[in-house]
Amino acid sequence: MDIQNLINSIAHDVEPYLAQGRPADYIPALAMESPQQFAMAVATLDGGLYATGLADKRFSIQSISKAFMLAHTLQRHGEALWQRVGKEPSGNPFNSLVQLEYEHGIPRNPFINAGALVVTDIAISEFGDSSSALRDFLREESGEPAIDFDYVIAASEAEHGHRNAALGHFMKSCNNITGGVEPLLAHYFRACSMRMNVRELARAGLFLANHGVSPVSGQQRLSRSQAKQVNAIMLTCGTYDAAGEFAYRVGLPCKSGVGGGILAVLPGKMSIAVWSPGLDARGNSLAGLEALDRFTTRSGESVF
Amino acid sequence: MDIQNLINSIAHDVEPYLAQGRPADYIPALAMESPQQFAMAVATLDGGLYATGLADKRFSIQSISKAFMLAHTLQRHGEALWQRVGKEPSGNPFNSLVQLEYEHGIPRNPFINAGALVVTDIAISEFGDSSSALRDFLREESGEPAIDFDYVIAASEAEHGHRNAALGHFMKSCNNITGGVEPLLAHYFRACSMRMNVRELARAGLFLANHGVSPVSGQQRLSRSQAKQVNAIMLTCGTYDAAGEFAYRVGLPCKSGVGGGILAVLPGKMSIAVWSPGLDARGNSLAGLEALDRFTTRSGESVF
Amino acid sequence: MDIQNLINSIAHDVEPYLAQGRPADYIPALAMESPQQFAMAVATLDGGLYATGLADKRFSIQSISKAFMLAHTLQRHGEALWQRVGKEPSGNPFNSLVQLEYEHGIPRNPFINAGALVVTDIAISEFGDSSSALRDFLREESGEPAIDFDYVIAASEAEHGHRNAALGHFMKSCNNITGGVEPLLAHYFRACSMRMNVRELARAGLFLANHGVSPVSGQQRLSRSQAKQVNAIMLTCGTYDAAGEFAYRVGLPCKSGVGGGILAVLPGKMSIAVWSPGLDARGNSLAGLEALDRFTTRSGESVF
Amino acid sequence: MDIQNLINSIAHDVEPYLAQGRPADYIPALAMESPQQFAMAVATLDGGLYATGLADKRFSIQSISKAFMLAHTLQRHGEALWQRVGKEPSGNPFNSLVQLEYEHGIPRNPFINAGALVVTDIAISEFGDSSSALRDFLREESGEPAIDFDYVIAASEAEHGHRNAALGHFMKSCNNITGGVEPLLAHYFRACSMRMNVRELARAGLFLANHGVSPVSGQQRLSRSQAKQVNAIMLTCGTYDAAGEFAYRVGLPCKSGVGGGILAVLPGKMSIAVWSPGLDARGNSLAGLEALDRFTTRSGESVF
Repeated sequence: MDIQNLINSIAHDVEPYLAQGRPADYIPALAMESPQQFAMAVATLDGGLYATGLADKRFSIQSISKAFMLAHTLQRHGEALWQRVGKEPSGNPFNSLVQLEYEHGIPRNPFINAGALVVTDIAISEFGDSSSALRDFLREESGEPAIDFDYVIAASEAEHGHRNAALGHFMKSCNNITGGVEPLLAHYFRACSMRMNVRELARAGLFLANHGVSPVSGQQRLSRSQAKQVNAIMLTCGTYDAAGEFAYRVGLPCKSGVGGGILAVLPGKMSIAVWSPGLDARGNSLAGLEALDRFTTRSGESVF
Repeated sequence: MDIQNLINSIAHDVEPYLAQGRPADYIPALAMESPQQFAMAVATLDGGLYATGLADKRFSIQSISKAFMLAHTLQRHGEALWQRVGKEPSGNPFNSLVQLEYEHGIPRNPFINAGALVVTDIAISEFGDSSSALRDFLREESGEPAIDFDYVIAASEAEHGHRNAALGHFMKSCNNITGGVEPLLAHYFRACSMRMNVRELARAGLFLANHGVSPVSGQQRLSRSQAKQVNAIMLTCGTYDAAGEFAYRVGLPCKSGVGGGILAVLPGKMSIAVWSPGLDARGNSLAGLEALDRFTTRSGESVF
Repeated sequence: MDIQNLINSIAHDVEPYLAQGRPADYIPALAMESPQQFAMAVATLDGGLYATGLADKRFSIQSISKAFMLAHTLQRHGEALWQRVGKEPSGNPFNSLVQLEYEHGIPRNPFINAGALVVTDIAISEFGDSSSALRDFLREESGEPAIDFDYVIAASEAEHGHRNAALGHFMKSCNNITGGVEPLLAHYFRACSMRMNVRELARAGLFLANHGVSPVSGQQRLSRSQAKQVNAIMLTCGTYDAAGEFAYRVGLPCKSGVGGGILAVLPGKMSIAVWSPGLDARGNSLAGLEALDRFTTRSGESVF
Repeated sequence: MDIQNLINSIAHDVEPYLAQGRPADYIPALAMESPQQFAMAVATLDGGLYATGLADKRFSIQSISKAFMLAHTLQRHGEALWQRVGKEPSGNPFNSLVQLEYEHGIPRNPFINAGALVVTDIAISEFGDSSSALRDFLREESGEPAIDFDYVIAASEAEHGHRNAALGHFMKSCNNITGGVEPLLAHYFRACSMRMNVRELARAGLFLANHGVSPVSGQQRLSRSQAKQVNAIMLTCGTYDAAGEFAYRVGLPCKSGVGGGILAVLPGKMSIAVWSPGLDARGNSLAGLEALDRFTTRSGESVF
């Protein structure tokens, strides 16, 4: 497989799809991104790094941070984490309160907002300044010490974050948040505001493709078993309520964000990052999904 | 990997778990099965067939039939099938009416009961006698012409099948069932009543591990892309509301049945069938899940 | 209060509203009724009977039959009835399956379809031919032996009755239906198909305004306490999911039907029947609600 | 009717029920109240005031304040209030988030917590210091200038108020809260913390029994039509998810609070206040409901 040729060709093929997506519009900084932008990068376990499009442009990784926050916190806190958050697909929107109420404040999985808040609450108890700890993790794993939060976006999220505040207060009322709701939200929004480009993101995800051992930093980030677990949860829960669609079309563990980024993992081989800010109706990058679909279909590579 | 040794060892290891499961008790024929029974078989693409335990004993495949019914019907009816049934995990019990009502009679996926009823309705329109067509399919793919329905179980299911009747009538009221509800239920219960042993089941599932081409019958049962789709849906939706747990622990596309059977697929390599009638709280074979967990953990094989 | 003048005036005032409603369209016989029709009748405890509009035209009473079926069955079966059906407002559409599933097959109240099916199931166990028993009841209470079922409408309902079949089968699966689902539906649809005019309907409802004793037949149809109960349930649950709106605007116990009829009760004084086939978005007679609102507002009479 | 004799007799009759209720236990100040306490008072439109039991002991009126807050705010803000809160029974627990999410942040009625928060938000926009305005209202209507908030209880509620905070933030995210969530909660908890005794409460409710005109203050507190509306909403929504039970057994508009108080209104005649801190499973005063049931049954007075 000539990866560079393949992704160049894909970048060309998805052009007609760029105009069909709509950037997230709930905060100004995301709404201003042009949907015409596209970038894709592939990092392989043997050290290859291939990129196409706006591969140097950093974007807001948003919910993709949840995959790293989970990995980081799972390593430190261990299996006990699963007593406070489930690992089943939710079948409901990512910010739904309904299921949370029926299930007494135990979020269905770590990738819906409620679940990510619980993981962040655990991360705060483990690391103290959990958002900075995540930033350090991402700097090491991307090999790029300059990546950072976007404080404007974090502030803007906080201002419009009443729904996440509702989730936090509700879980606090169920005794599934141990610290204060205010600092929890601050760390959560800050982690989501990280800016990275597809090259950095693909490299940062390599440890998930390599059974937990990072080829970038050389560190064992997760046990073999934990890496399998995180990939499994990405596949079943990583793309809002389109996990089935992604499994069906892409066939790889993926985690998406409303900034238009998607991180995909092909275990044993590579990690792939794609970015295009135009979203589909379910909140995933429209051109990003098209690109990943083509990548696995043409390469014949998928977990299935 | 010495498969025979591995499964022999697993059969030994799961013995303590046999007593922890409870056979399905909603119909007498299932309730009478002793939970002490266990069998496991592996069929490899290169023609290997390995088995341990009660590998010659046939059991009621129940919902495992849904995977074959889907494959069989998808090949004939094509993509149009997905206009009448979704492909997302449900997040709700397999026989729930709630989600179906919110979603106006379009079942979330083909493996919850409502979805399987829609697939059966399509199968009837395509094949006429859809349950017999499925039986023929399974006879060919298992290479065993003697396998058959269990008419006692089918009749018993029908007698206790008011909840499935409710699903059928509800979808009929939403115009998502084209034929009569009565014959639909009859075909559905008959298909679920098929009796197979783990050897037959593992062989019958090989086409899913071989990108749609059956090494047993030599037939192209599904296109490469459709085989990926069916595997994806098995992984995200195949084990009732424990899909996340299975992905996390087993890491393979699986389809389970309340008879205690589970079919698992390792794409490109093999298919695995396991049977033990004792179920866990979510309706999957308790010892079966333990066995598959051990199989992928010890062999290091999983899609992740 | 000059009742005749008042209702004549109201008939005039609601004319502009006639065109705003839409007849029920799920079965042909109802869909064909012109929404321009209107009738209103008031029967007082002292023997007065006042009418305006098309007071001789019989219409399909539909769900208004549920109030009589409840009264009739409650008298015979007694308090035990409340073990199988609740008496709380549902907060959900009249034919919803959702709440029924969460509440394990015990319908929220006797006026949603599921609840009326349970009452009918009890009625069958008490009276045998429950629909004929109800017809006898209504003939006696209206003083009009000619009123009867509309077999065409009953057959048409049955043909389109898959949603009610779903409710019946679901409750059967929860063991809250004791007899067969098929005969249950037949009796239910037949009872709903009764044709009465507003004069007959107002007279038939007088026992509810008179603490259970019928001034028409002279019979004690309900105990004083039971009459209070039925009125209370009419007020809180009698008008689909518009019970609050009716209480707020009309302030009387009411029971409506999709045929466009509404029966209202002013305890201690009178009963009122109104009919106009055009329905509002919640399934109640649009002009009927306007007429009742005016009646209580202008007369200063309501339970509040 | 000899009211004094009747309520004395009722006080005696409900003694066995006192031990069956359990005081609210979510905040210490309420949990400490002995369930053995009981008081009942009746205020008639002609100036009579009858009391029995601990009629001088003030208790926390809690959600009964919602009825006064609604009346007070409705008078000032008018019909526009109903654009932001519904008037239908909810069919769900008083603090549920589920329905609120399905209905996009418009609470079902003003007596569930979410609805009372919206009314309080409107009250703040109308009165500024809405809790003090409510206190002034209650002082005037009870004729007792000494009644006041309980700041200890208000603070305690705030500390345990994460579920109400969740409701507030959720509705803020739906743009149905105009001010800040923090001050809103402060006013809400303060209003709920008012302490009154049954005598004061019965007198304060008289304007609802007198078509909006207070015999105590002489003021027109509500129009005749608005008084009917508030009574209607009390009857259909005033007692958590037991509105049907109250209508059925008591047959009067009622508003209850978790402090064990209940206010009931017999339009055109009287208002009744009862207090006993032991609650039933649905959060209403257990002995209070027994007392009101006996009052209407023995007196033959109810709206039905």
